Amino acid sequence: MDQLKFVIEPSEAETMAKTLGLSVFQLLRTLAKSAQKITHIPISNFPVGAAGLTSDGRIFLGVNLEFPGLPLHHSVHAEQFLVANLSFHHPAHVKTVVISAYPCGHCRQFLQEIRGAPEIQILVPQNEDQASDKTNNGNNPQSENDYFRPLSYFLPHRFGPDDLLHNDVPLLLESHDNFLVIADEMSAEEGNLCNGFFNFEQNKLVLAALEAANKSHAPYSGCPSGVALMDVDGKVYKGSYMESAAYNPSLGPAQAAVVAYVVATGGGDGGFDKIVAAVLVEKEGAVVRQGDTVR
Amino acid sequence: MDQLKFVIEPSEAETMAKTLGLSVFQLLRTLAKSAQKITHIPISNFPVGAAGLTSDGRIFLGVNLEFPGLPLHHSVHAEQFLVANLSFHHPAHVKTVVISAYPCGHCRQFLQEIRGAPEIQILVPQNEDQASDKTNNGNNPQSENDYFRPLSYFLPHRFGPDDLLHNDVPLLLESHDNFLVIADEMSAEEGNLCNGFFNFEQNKLVLAALEAANKSHAPYSGCPSGVALMDVDGKVYKGSYMESAAYNPSLGPAQAAVVAYVVATGGGDGGFDKIVAAVLVEKEGAVVRQGDTVR
Ligand SMILES: [Zn+2]
Ligand SMILES: [Zn+2]
Repeated sequence: MDQLKFVIEPSEAETMAKTLGLSVFQLLRTLAKSAQKITHIPISNFPVGAAGLTSDGRIFLGVNLEFPGLPLHHSVHAEQFLVANLSFHHPAHVKTVVISAYPCGHCRQFLQEIRGAPEIQILVPQNEDQASDKTNNGNNPQSENDYFRPLSYFLPHRFGPDDLLHNDVPLLLESHDNFLVIADEMSAEEGNLCNGFFNFEQNKLVLAALEAANKSHAPYSGCPSGVALMDVDGKVYKGSYMESAAYNPSLGPAQAAVVAYVVATGGGDGGFDKIVAAVLVEKEGAVVRQGDTVR
Repeated sequence: MDQLKFVIEPSEAETMAKTLGLSVFQLLRTLAKSAQKITHIPISNFPVGAAGLTSDGRIFLGVNLEFPGLPLHHSVHAEQFLVANLSFHHPAHVKTVVISAYPCGHCRQFLQEIRGAPEIQILVPQNEDQASDKTNNGNNPQSENDYFRPLSYFLPHRFGPDDLLHNDVPLLLESHDNFLVIADEMSAEEGNLCNGFFNFEQNKLVLAALEAANKSHAPYSGCPSGVALMDVDGKVYKGSYMESAAYNPSLGPAQAAVVAYVVATGGGDGGFDKIVAAVLVEKEGAVVRQGDTVR
């Protein structure tokens, strides 16, 4: 995988747009296309890139990830990656998303967990090559087929959080605290968890997973969870479980943590081999798995 | 759970419609509503019923199923149940589907695996009580909001099988043979699989799971699989893995086998406690699990 910056600050975005001679929407298109080179898709070989603009002018990217040997529902779509990426950065409202391919129904559903989802503006660039030819010729860079449509157009008569939750329950990118604590049994068991890691590192991982679990969006099952990964250098990456009103499109905590790893390393650093430990914290207690279950 | 007939022959459908004084579409509405009483939804308590009419006049029902203790992506939505039910019965073309609630994006995507999916006509009855009041008064029984719309309306610009497959690859309800055979190592290992079952019963289960795996729709991963369940009476229920072009909405073989059980018992017979054994056959070999992983 190449390297990519998955979070772009407003000033950087402005500089990039100016340097490339692009409007912000053209920049989003270009970034969504660039992101296609950073995907991890050994199964489908179908690269998808997504670029989202928030109301404070930041740009967040998403790419699709696939994990051979695991059931396909563990795959992370570019739109899910984008939402997980947003969740790590206390985003302002996400206004517009450009995706390199039409979103599947699963993603159209997952996006419903964001407040105001039906109004998110979606653009799928058409005739990419043709349109970029036009840019090169100095003509109108937008193909005629290129226009934003609200998510409500792509998923009319949605099934969403408001079918199941009260209006005052926090939604996906809103602040959560699930008030989980590590149970005493867990602390007592920790002594048994030593598989070549120091207790200090273990504690760090468990606390990181706990923090992720406390930020988890799990209003439908009431079972928040979080995963923390550690790489060979001892760096920790956290992912919170993100539930969908439609259940099945939920994003697991391990997937979210892998997204955090890919974001932090600018593209996964050639794979997931450097992830050496993983901790899962769930409501019922905690389970420790080694990194290979996550890969 | 109450009892319900999940497959209704054309002559039965005609008799039912005549007895109830309903058109076939009104009968579909009534059946979708009745199916809501046969759901197994300990987590959401959100019952969904679906009724599909095929071109040969048969009616197939679907209900949603949830499995506490398993991740939510193991849930079976009513529309997926309906498709699995169709797959067991060599259906003619499915023309129209009535669902008690707007389908989620996950289901809109899963339905794309059927050839001609965009043209399937979908109806979600509105103002159910109001409309049935009207029926009782002898007025027009269809609410003004009640009309069929094609699936392409609910998932415009779909991502579907034609984005990934050649046109001559069989789709979900079409005939499959994956040419799997039980490997020698498997036969050799069978002696170790005896957990209180006779070898004869084991063989029966393994062969049933193999048959299901050979009917599996797995063109995207190339990894077909099948599950066979056995109940306390020695009856066998088969389920084939059904893959989605969007990966995550795929229906697992265990879920499909549970659907087969619910269909055969007219509603799961009060739960899944009577399932005592399960066999999974995958391309790489075969793994045996006990029934509690399926529950
Ligand atoms: Zn998707
Ligand atoms: Zn659904």
